[in-house]
Amino acid sequence: MKTITSRSNEQIKYVANLQKDSHARYADEVYTVEGIRMSRELPPGSVLQLFISESFNKKNAAADIAGDVRDELITIVADDVFEKISSTKSPQGILALVKMPRYELSDLTRGGKGLLLLEEIQDPGNLGTILRSAEAAGLGGVILDEKCADIFSPKVVRSTMGSIFRVPFIKTDSFALAVSALKENSYTIYAAHLDGEDIYSSNFSAKSAFLIGNEGNGLRRETSMLADKMIRIPMEGKVESLNASIAASLLAFEWRAFRRTYEKRNT
Amino acid sequence: MKTITSRSNEQIKYVANLQKDSHARYADEVYTVEGIRMSRELPPGSVLQLFISESFNKKNAAADIAGDVRDELITIVADDVFEKISSTKSPQGILALVKMPRYELSDLTRGGKGLLLLEEIQDPGNLGTILRSAEAAGLGGVILDEKCADIFSPKVVRSTMGSIFRVPFIKTDSFALAVSALKENSYTIYAAHLDGEDIYSSNFSAKSAFLIGNEGNGLRRETSMLADKMIRIPMEGKVESLNASIAASLLAFEWRAFRRTYEKRNT
Repeated sequence: MKTITSRSNEQIKYVANLQKDSHARYADEVYTVEGIRMSRELPPGSVLQLFISESFNKKNAAADIAGDVRDELITIVADDVFEKISSTKSPQGILALVKMPRYELSDLTRGGKGLLLLEEIQDPGNLGTILRSAEAAGLGGVILDEKCADIFSPKVVRSTMGSIFRVPFIKTDSFALAVSALKENSYTIYAAHLDGEDIYSSNFSAKSAFLIGNEGNGLRRETSMLADKMIRIPMEGKVESLNASIAASLLAFEWRAFRRTYEKRNT
Repeated sequence: MKTITSRSNEQIKYVANLQKDSHARYADEVYTVEGIRMSRELPPGSVLQLFISESFNKKNAAADIAGDVRDELITIVADDVFEKISSTKSPQGILALVKMPRYELSDLTRGGKGLLLLEEIQDPGNLGTILRSAEAAGLGGVILDEKCADIFSPKVVRSTMGSIFRVPFIKTDSFALAVSALKENSYTIYAAHLDGEDIYSSNFSAKSAFLIGNEGNGLRRETSMLADKMIRIPMEGKVESLNASIAASLLAFEWRAFRRTYEKRNT
């Protein structure tokens, strides 16, 4: 196995740039995944190249961490060079270049589960957390508009805790089109509104799609108007809104809880 | 009104230090609150001093923003000096020095509502979001252990979106003591556990206290053992855990929903 010892190595410059530049990521349809925990969950066959630091290599067998990765895909990197490609302050010494997955709307709708439609979710931590909650609640997937944070940015990827490998998602430049495709597939579209129905006394269809708005401004008016039904997360005190990832998670889990109870009652 | 034009002014250095140094905050029992939105929600009588930038002063009447603040507490600061005391990259030009509130356990238990007990919640965004959700779900308050992020740090304060002014909280160096005081007050203590009861089919007492563990490691074993009952947020897929602020919010809102239904049925 070759070892890279120069910070000006072309591959090193390439990876360092991928960490920062979303255009570069999309041009090559590749993104980065860092750390031991995330590396263990890499989907089989998705890794294009695996970089490990020299000190990581001394302590661990890369194959134990990212089992599926063939030896010829592994590159060892001097520790100080690894710092250049890492997006974290204290790198764990393992970084994979991963092929972007490609989903179609049918991958999200196939199981007839709940969906989230995210409008301008700009905080990477919120976006990653929403994917993590979507998987935990058993949703069918997530639809993002063009103004959401880049789902393949290092901070989003990290916040998903691996759910980015398992939750189908697509990006759309038109919620209107996405919503009409969902309606053709018999989905009910829900939007949050102060006068909406309390989610804790609502009936949710199996095929429910929830519109979630931007952190600061909520849903745009024209987006809200795409909804079939207005719902409301009840709030006490003087709180005007919830954190976007909290709102998305409460909806996702309430959808799940309602459907579970409903299906149990009807079987 | 005086205007401060020097970055080496003693007051400026004092405020800049308060932004970074939690010991300095506790020594004087004062913390900082920034931004227009947060300033509007400042509790009456809590402001010790209000700094506004020159350009903010030209555009706004400080009294319109922070209505309760007397003129003699307002200091105008040159824009470049304001940057030094601000904790944000694009300061809005308004910053208050605020007296720390002081709560007793009885302030949290008075209404007989749900409580959250937070162990080592280290991410400031998570901690602030938890306070915001606690208010929205109508909880009685939040108990933090010594290893939580400092609740008065600028990032936590900002993430609470004003809930820090309204949700009672106390810090404890012993969960064991706090829990035994709660048990004397007839609280039921819940902890998350993989073998616990599904929260969507659990009965919650009005006086419920939920233990929430650290982001990476969950609850310490000895903390879990303080609980009366083990509960579980059901999770699909390969998700091993939820973000701490998501878990806390799901518990808080499920407590609220259960109590609402229960009380409606029994009145």
